[in-house]
Amino acid sequence: MSFSVIENGSVTSPACFQACGVVCGLKRSGAPDMAMIYSPRPCVTAGAFTSNLFAAAPVEYDRAIVASGNPVQMVVVNSGNANACTGENGLADAKRTAELAGKLMMLHPSQVLVSSTGRIGVPMPMDIIEKGVEMCVKELSPDGGETAARAIMTTDTVPKHLAVSLDIGGATVRIGGMTKGAGMIAPKLKMQQPQATMLCYLTTDANIERAALNECLSNAIGNSFNRITVDGDTSTNDTVLVLANGAAGNDEIKAGTPECAAFGEALQYVMADLAKRMVLDGEGVSKFVEVNIHGAASKADAKICAEAIANSALCKTAWFGADPNWGRILCAAGYCGISFDPSKADLFYDGVPVVRGGVDAGTPEADLVKVLKNREWKMDLYLGAGDGDYTVWTCDLTYDYVKINADYHT
Amino acid sequence: MSFSVIENGSVTSPACFQACGVVCGLKRSGAPDMAMIYSPRPCVTAGAFTSNLFAAAPVEYDRAIVASGNPVQMVVVNSGNANACTGENGLADAKRTAELAGKLMMLHPSQVLVSSTGRIGVPMPMDIIEKGVEMCVKELSPDGGETAARAIMTTDTVPKHLAVSLDIGGATVRIGGMTKGAGMIAPKLKMQQPQATMLCYLTTDANIERAALNECLSNAIGNSFNRITVDGDTSTNDTVLVLANGAAGNDEIKAGTPECAAFGEALQYVMADLAKRMVLDGEGVSKFVEVNIHGAASKADAKICAEAIANSALCKTAWFGADPNWGRILCAAGYCGISFDPSKADLFYDGVPVVRGGVDAGTPEADLVKVLKNREWKMDLYLGAGDGDYTVWTCDLTYDYVKINADYHT
Repeated sequence: MSFSVIENGSVTSPACFQACGVVCGLKRSGAPDMAMIYSPRPCVTAGAFTSNLFAAAPVEYDRAIVASGNPVQMVVVNSGNANACTGENGLADAKRTAELAGKLMMLHPSQVLVSSTGRIGVPMPMDIIEKGVEMCVKELSPDGGETAARAIMTTDTVPKHLAVSLDIGGATVRIGGMTKGAGMIAPKLKMQQPQATMLCYLTTDANIERAALNECLSNAIGNSFNRITVDGDTSTNDTVLVLANGAAGNDEIKAGTPECAAFGEALQYVMADLAKRMVLDGEGVSKFVEVNIHGAASKADAKICAEAIANSALCKTAWFGADPNWGRILCAAGYCGISFDPSKADLFYDGVPVVRGGVDAGTPEADLVKVLKNREWKMDLYLGAGDGDYTVWTCDLTYDYVKINADYHT
Repeated sequence: MSFSVIENGSVTSPACFQACGVVCGLKRSGAPDMAMIYSPRPCVTAGAFTSNLFAAAPVEYDRAIVASGNPVQMVVVNSGNANACTGENGLADAKRTAELAGKLMMLHPSQVLVSSTGRIGVPMPMDIIEKGVEMCVKELSPDGGETAARAIMTTDTVPKHLAVSLDIGGATVRIGGMTKGAGMIAPKLKMQQPQATMLCYLTTDANIERAALNECLSNAIGNSFNRITVDGDTSTNDTVLVLANGAAGNDEIKAGTPECAAFGEALQYVMADLAKRMVLDGEGVSKFVEVNIHGAASKADAKICAEAIANSALCKTAWFGADPNWGRILCAAGYCGISFDPSKADLFYDGVPVVRGGVDAGTPEADLVKVLKNREWKMDLYLGAGDGDYTVWTCDLTYDYVKINADYHT
């Protein structure tokens, strides 16, 4: 590991970034519901957005700006309303939010990105949004990272933020990040295409060219947010944004260089850590489960198999009950549509043999229950069909997931 | 409708069928756990079985017999143990069960089909099975249809059985059926390939050729069990069997004739009714929801869309809460992978407009809540992309589903 974790780090750990979170009144609960990130220096920007056909208005808006390659200086994020399935009016509202924030900070609207999370299909209450933006610009602070992380939460129970630092050619570069998740979590982010209402904002003071930033983000997504699933539902609003303001003063990081690899490794660490924390803080989650598939005929097959197990309601409820019911896991592998020989399947829970050659390995049930009572555990399923491996991070399905989603208006 | 429903009908309503259900001791609860169906006359037989790679031993066993086309006279069904993921020993146990039952009734083992449902991966307690088979052959009765339907239940709360009669060329033909379901319900039955631990046994006294019976079963599956999903999990043990003993004395029904169509219609009615009842009696279910997709680019697209909505944990929990949250429905349609123009989407709940052109139709929420509080309701989602239609029957996701599956060892 060629980087170190900054204690209580956040999006304001990198130099020259400011942030804040305020209560503007979108949430009936009175919890913070608008966050802002700002850099006085223009930022090279990369992004990934939901692949849902019903992409929310702010996603449509941001996508165009990120694709343009123009420098960005600000992100405005509201929780409490998704501004999704809101038609032309929704898009106009997203633009108006960017215009207002830009005007107050002397920025062109194209330098302002906007994000929303919350209930789908409800028009944005623009009077509240406008008030929130006015509050945010007054509250921006170099210490505002944690309050920003709190303001983007919906059903999350804890703010999730982190920062690391690394040396790039003698200069200290920092990468900060914050995320929210909780439900509608099954990201399948492509560059400019993530999923699930997961929002993730990354800041860095690195001096890095756009191609290099894109490369690092793309690689990191494949090993972080694209590996997680809470409920298999892919949101209309998923967004990952990374802003690089160059304030660290390092020589520009170019794509395909060792510096780019080092930066990418650190970025991936931040994103993977945030992704895992998102699963652990998923709606009603009591268990974190790493599903490792080995020896599928291809990586694509391994992914299908891992996701089938990770999204199986029967597996997830069994994990909630610490029930070592491996039949449900094999069952999911068996119906997911890939090919392998069932009589070659081996399964382990935290290294303890569960299934050998498709049948019970003979480990006493009590030993398996012991593993499954851990808050975090992993399974390794060997299919013996080839070299395809894949890992998914997931969770159990609990009473509280049902309660939250039957009662809460997303 | 050219058939009539027989009051309290069952698998013993057709002439010359006997059945029974007994307590042999597989279930700790002491509930009935073995059923038998018997016809003194050899039966033309058609079947459909799980496509799960981990097909249970009895599925492997039955598949070969049904494929052979040899006449069958008996089905032995146990609940409480699935005999799945039990390897060579499991297959030997399935054969031994058929041999024992055959011996007691003077049948060749190849005239006896066997089915199992229950926990996966546990060896069959053959002493109990043997005792059960001996009890069953003594209990067989022309009135035993309902007790048989009770004995195949696992987490089902009510027995599900039905019969109809129709006229074929002046002869009265009867079709009876029974089913169990409750969990692991997402059948994708192909002929000789269903799914989810759903078991369905159909009897008829029709004189019908094998090709015609296969044709009728294949069509009926597509409009019954293949339209339902409780949890999206496809079992190792799914089985649909139909036995036709010819006792009605009608002229043999040939494939492609009007008589075949009439028989097929009646068979489909029985299977669709049992399939709907299975959903209504699904694990923890409080709501039955019919998901109708209209105007997808193809039927295949419509099916993908309908199943994505029907299996979405977020949609299902919203239905449980009678939350008209249509955003989750559009969201599922948007991420399921098919192509359509979001701004053309229209959605109705029981005919009440919910979404018009991809945005809120303006119906007061209270009016939508009223619909969603019904025990049964339907949605119609119009995509405006072509002629593809599809219907899925599904249910909500409740506390009780989680409770049953966290506590119960399938």
